[in-house]
This record gives sequence, C-alpha cells and structure tokens, in this order.
Amino acid sequence: MPPDEFELIGRYFTGRGALRDDVRLSVGDDAAVVTPRAGAELVLALDTIVAGVHFPADTSGRFVGHRVLAVNLSDLAAMGAEPAWVLLGLTLPAADEAWIAEFAAGFEVLARRFGVALIGGDTTRGPLTATATVGGWVGPGAALTRSCARPGDDLWVSGTPGDAGAGLAILQSGLAAGGATREELLRRFLLPEPRVGLGMALCGVASACIDISDGLAGDLEKLCSASGVGAQLDCLRLPRSAQLLEAAGESASMRYALAGGDDYELLFTAPAAARNRIEDLTRLVPVSLIGEITATPSVELEGAQLERDLVHGFDHFKERPDDPR
Amino acid sequence: MPPDEFELIGRYFTGRGALRDDVRLSVGDDAAVVTPRAGAELVLALDTIVAGVHFPADTSGRFVGHRVLAVNLSDLAAMGAEPAWVLLGLTLPAADEAWIAEFAAGFEVLARRFGVALIGGDTTRGPLTATATVGGWVGPGAALTRSCARPGDDLWVSGTPGDAGAGLAILQSGLAAGGATREELLRRFLLPEPRVGLGMALCGVASACIDISDGLAGDLEKLCSASGVGAQLDCLRLPRSAQLLEAAGESASMRYALAGGDDYELLFTAPAAARNRIEDLTRLVPVSLIGEITATPSVELEGAQLERDLVHGFDHFKERPDDPR
Repeated sequence: MPPDEFELIGRYFTGRGALRDDVRLSVGDDAAVVTPRAGAELVLALDTIVAGVHFPADTSGRFVGHRVLAVNLSDLAAMGAEPAWVLLGLTLPAADEAWIAEFAAGFEVLARRFGVALIGGDTTRGPLTATATVGGWVGPGAALTRSCARPGDDLWVSGTPGDAGAGLAILQSGLAAGGATREELLRRFLLPEPRVGLGMALCGVASACIDISDGLAGDLEKLCSASGVGAQLDCLRLPRSAQLLEAAGESASMRYALAGGDDYELLFTAPAAARNRIEDLTRLVPVSLIGEITATPSVELEGAQLERDLVHGFDHFKERPDDPR
Repeated sequence: MPPDEFELIGRYFTGRGALRDDVRLSVGDDAAVVTPRAGAELVLALDTIVAGVHFPADTSGRFVGHRVLAVNLSDLAAMGAEPAWVLLGLTLPAADEAWIAEFAAGFEVLARRFGVALIGGDTTRGPLTATATVGGWVGPGAALTRSCARPGDDLWVSGTPGDAGAGLAILQSGLAAGGATREELLRRFLLPEPRVGLGMALCGVASACIDISDGLAGDLEKLCSASGVGAQLDCLRLPRSAQLLEAAGESASMRYALAGGDDYELLFTAPAAARNRIEDLTRLVPVSLIGEITATPSVELEGAQLERDLVHGFDHFKERPDDPR
C-alpha cells in the first residue's frame, strides 16, 4: 500500500530546513507559530510554480523542490529581507515516493543554506503544482521597493542574465549546446540562485530593486512604471556569460539576456554616489552598471537592433510562439 | 484582447480585503511588508484547494474565492489566532474575467468580515488551484494546539457536523433533497464559516483544538494521537441539523456527521471545570459536549452501529469509492 498523506508529511516534510530558535510550533498542527524579531518588519512573499508552465513536466523532483523555494527567496532578496521560514503547498498527481524524496532533498539543501525552517504547509492531490510562502525580516522602513528609483540613478544588474532562458531552450530542444557549456546553462535554469546576500547588502544603498523573473527588459519596465520614471539601458554593457555567447551567438544572446526570464538576478538602481559601495559588492556576486534612470517615462534600449516587444515581460495568460511556457 | 496577468492583478487583487494600519507595503511589489504586533506571536497557515478534488470543477468563482480563504482562516481559528493578512496564489486555465471577478468578490466579502487584508500573492496559468497563506496573532504561549488534551477532559464540537458533506453529496447527485433543506445543506458546503471568534475565545480555556476538515472521527484521531490520549465519543450526543436528518435519515446522517469532511467546525477539549465558561460561548456559535478524553490511546465510538473505517479521515492520496474527492 502506498504511503498516505500524513505518513508522507511525517517522513519528508517534518523537521526540514534550518533549526531556528524563533520557531515555537512547526509542521504537524493546524498552523505554525513563530516569534517575531523585536523592532523589525515582516516581509512575506508567495509564488507558485506549475508543471508545464514554469518548468518542464518531466523535471526531476530535486530541481522542482529547489525551484519553488528559490523563486520565493528571490522575492525576499529583492526586498532586502533576511529569510526565516517557509510554508509549502505541494499538489501531486500521485504519491510517487521517489519523486517526493528528491523534491524534499532539493528543498532541504537550499533551505539549510539560507537558514530557513520549513514550518508548515499542505499536500494535496491534483496536477503538479508547488506554492511556497516565505517570511523574513528587514529593519523598520528599510525594505527595498520597486517604486523609489529617481532620474539620474545608475541602473545595475547582478550576474549574467539570459543563461537560464538559454538553459530552458536547451531542455526544450530550441538551442543546441554541448559539454560544459550545456551543463552550465542547464544548471543556471534548473538551480537558480536567489541573491539573498546581495539584496540584504543593498538595503540603505539601492534606491529601487526588483528580481528578474520575467525577463530583464520587462521587469525594468515594471520598476520604471512603479517609480514613475524611465530608463536608458545600454545593451552593449549587458553582462553575458561566455557560455551564453558560445551557445547562442551575439544576436540571440542579447535576446536571451533581455527577455529570457527565470534569471532571478537583481535589477536595481542607486545614486551615482553609491558606485564605489556597489562595486565592493562584487565580493558577493558580480554586478554590472548597465544604464541610467531618466525622467522620461519610457524604457530605451540602446546599442542593439531589437524588436520593441522584448520590453514586454512574460505574461502567464498570453501564449507566445517563441516561449513554450 | 483579453486582459493580461498584471491588468488582472491591478483590477481584482489590489487593495482588497480590510484596510489595516499594520500593512506597510501591499500587492504590487516583490513581497509585502507588515509591522508585527508588539509582544504577540505570529501564526501562519497555508492550505491549497484543487478543482475536482476539494470542490467540483464547475463551482462558481464566488464560492471558490470564499473557500480558499475560509479553509485557511479555519486553521487560524483552530489555533485561537486573530487573523490579520492573506497572500493568495491563484492558478487558472485561462483569463476568464467573469469567473475571476466572482472569485475576487467571494474572497473580498469574507476578508472584510474578518478584518483581513490581501497583501500579496501570485497568479499563474495552469489547472484550477488556489492556495492561500494567512497570518495572525496570539498572545505569547497562548496558541491552542492539538497536543495538550488530557485524560478526563471533556470533548466538544461546534455547530452541526455533517451538513457540508451532505451538501457535497447533493451537488454530486449522491443525495436527494429539495427546497429549503437543499439550499441550507448546499450553503453549508459552499460557504463554510470559519469559527474565528470561537477559537479566539477558547484561548486559555480549551486544552486542545483542531478544525474538522477531514471528518470529525478522523480529526479526533489526529488530536488524540498528537496528545498521546484516546477518546470516548458518544454518538448519540452528536449534534445533527434538522436539514441533515431530513435529507439523510438517522443512519446516514450519523455517517455524514462522523466522516463527512469539509465542516470547518472546531473540535476541542477542556477540563470539566471549564464547562460553564464553554456553554457561555454559545452566544458565538452552538457548542456541544460529545464525549471524554481517555488515557487509553484509542478512539471509541459509542451509541451507533458504525464501521471502524469511519475513524480514518480523508486522505488526498487514497481514492475512496464512496468519496468522489
């Protein structure tokens, strides 16, 4: 007889993630109870990933477990928050214990790395979908937002956007690559790295911040729209990895970097006076100055021949022929 | 052209629910920011509902919007917590704006009634599924749990369990009923009422508490297992509504009351010395004394001819021929 829901919860989702002193009651009751950090503000994010939409339906449980936590931690990173706990909603077509064990292992490794305790959630039967809610802390009034970019601010991005989009294209046979290049681009799609340390370091330094989940150009437009500003993005300064350039070439790599999605890098703005402090942050993760915030409320892409529709981010309710999600 | 994800979020999921002073940043950024209540503990719950599993796939959006919030508020009620905010993950096959408007309206009415602000979430494309995470407050160490029932404690239940299960059976043509009886049983399934006020009033009074989502007998077994105790449940004292008795008759109504699921009533224990205080709570919702906690770690059902398998609650990974979920 296959294990039932309660046995699975006990075996794979109890006592997972980091041990934390602030958890008073964890998985196993109707809800979890935690102790707030004195004087801090609470940051909460919820993101869902759906099989066949956000990841190929045959993805190993290990990568799905990693992903559902990573995309949520990325939201905390974009706010500059320190992660604390997570609740997990996992909907599964059947109790495939091997898959669940892989999922729990992928989730666990990332949770421990970031000091996050799994404190509650729900397992249900249905089409493969995973939702997590993460909670964390920022100092009073210190949270980064999308809405405080100012004309004249520098525009920065972390890491090398586009790699994840190219990794997905390899998985779905839209892009050919071999050897170490293939492995690295796949890794960048399958194991996104939330920029939690960078986000926390940007509190008090950056003026605005957003994570790149839907494509750099589209997410830049969202940041500008929330701030009531525009931006000039110098495409020639966009950092592109050697692997992306090798696999996709000059022109297509620019498309991946601007519109690929799934990067979970941070796109942020800061006054020019903060330039030295931000360059110091490359000890955490590489950051690149890629443009400037403008008063004119439009996003200008300079230095590349691109179609205007690159600016529009990924939208879950509109099919795009070049995007299998 | 149908509205896109961001337009839908703006139109239906921004500024919803109660206005609260403790919300610093709501829907529209990477995450929400709230101010903790000084000296209180934070209670967090996450529940998912899936079309065709937790509700019939053709259910009106209004009832689905109500349900996803109600089942989560019920978890807070079982902990004795005061609800504060909710994050919503909504996965939809298509951007059916009329359905979404109904969903948002059902969600909104319940959120306002309980003073809950919608502060964040995610909309995605995929099979119809809704997840919510609710947060709320209890005094330090005051949260009700499943694990502190003691031998000799009274066993209580709120409301009239079984009505919701009968309502679902009517919807799925497994039970015939007409007129006002039909309407009332359908209402009990479609618009479950979280017992938030009762749960808060039970803090410091009840010794243990659980909400009845999977069936009274199965949830009683979970409470007993968590507390390391047993129970004698006097079935003849089980409160059954006139509508349930009329639609299902004496024998089947007992089955619905014990194993129907979806009631979202509170099942709780308390020392006999608290009996007067608990009977006073009928000003909030009717409560009934239905048995006693025992030292022997087993659940005994007395006064009804019943199959033993009634004790086993609903399990999302096991099909049951008599349960269409």
